[in-house]
Amino acid sequence: MPHFIVEYSANLDGKVDIKGLCDAILDAAIDADVFELGAIRVRALRCEAYAIADRLPENGFVDLSLRLAAGRAIEVKKKLGDAVFAAVESFLAPLFETPHFALSFEIREIDPDFSWKKNAIHPRLRGK
Amino acid sequence: MPHFIVEYSANLDGKVDIKGLCDAILDAAIDADVFELGAIRVRALRCEAYAIADRLPENGFVDLSLRLAAGRAIEVKKKLGDAVFAAVESFLAPLFETPHFALSFEIREIDPDFSWKKNAIHPRLRGK
Amino acid sequence: MPHFIVEYSANLDGKVDIKGLCDAILDAAIDADVFELGAIRVRALRCEAYAIADRLPENGFVDLSLRLAAGRAIEVKKKLGDAVFAAVESFLAPLFETPHFALSFEIREIDPDFSWKKNAIHPRLRGK
Repeated sequence: MPHFIVEYSANLDGKVDIKGLCDAILDAAIDADVFELGAIRVRALRCEAYAIADRLPENGFVDLSLRLAAGRAIEVKKKLGDAVFAAVESFLAPLFETPHFALSFEIREIDPDFSWKKNAIHPRLRGK
Repeated sequence: MPHFIVEYSANLDGKVDIKGLCDAILDAAIDADVFELGAIRVRALRCEAYAIADRLPENGFVDLSLRLAAGRAIEVKKKLGDAVFAAVESFLAPLFETPHFALSFEIREIDPDFSWKKNAIHPRLRGK
Repeated sequence: MPHFIVEYSANLDGKVDIKGLCDAILDAAIDADVFELGAIRVRALRCEAYAIADRLPENGFVDLSLRLAAGRAIEVKKKLGDAVFAAVESFLAPLFETPHFALSFEIREIDPDFSWKKNAIHPRLRGK
């Protein structure tokens, strides 16, 4: 943990650098100073088939979910969410110049009692 | 919000029109009259690798998740779910003629305190 | 239900047999003796774009989620989770020989009041 998951409509191909979006989210997560570096995982899932609102072919979306371990203070999560959303909004600013794009972001907690993990990146980064 | 997410086994290629399934879900969501049109996003994720039940190569699945803002009455969500499920069941009826298909649908709420969004489709549709 | 969902970074191509991983998860789920065989669905989603930790190109991840019907005892879920995680850890053991891999697993419950399903596999297997 944490896991940032981007889902996006395939018609954003060529309009958005999705790898760059993942990098921007990682940057924002690092800057928020809430997580251990070795724990942060950002990834994107491309949705080839979709149906959005009034079905104009130009309609597209980016939906970001963050799953993180339960237990952080509400204010910490709010501030983190504000910062990440601002970064994503900024990265995707050109899309908002058209009336065909919707962005969303949700934070959801993981119950630590039902979470298992093994991370070989931590020891390498902790040793630095 | 709302977000409808279809996951399906890749062996449904050629058997199911997944884009058509997304459209059928959007139709059902519109007909339910619960959501603002510009907010509805339906999409599908294709699962190339899978292992299902007794592993017959014909075994396939469609799993639908709906994430929507918390706060609606239980009866509203039940009725919505019944209607969407009926539409999906009807669309996928040919698959149930074989003993190799499983369909599922879950509704989960999004905590509005940990949700961010920006939608450029709404102003266009609200202006109509 | 239950649904096992693997997400993984695309740089595991050629390093991990993802179909084999799905099979190992199915085996562990069957061995746990908690679920009806016809209900178990395991699948994987490949993430082409990602950004992980300190962004070394070798950094990779596997994230497993299990969604299952609410209502089972905590001890049952813990034991099931331990067994599935051990199976996945064992299957992915070679990846842990490098300092570039992170594995995670979360169990989340589905509210039966907001769950719909239709399964044509059950009758076939129940008849055996």
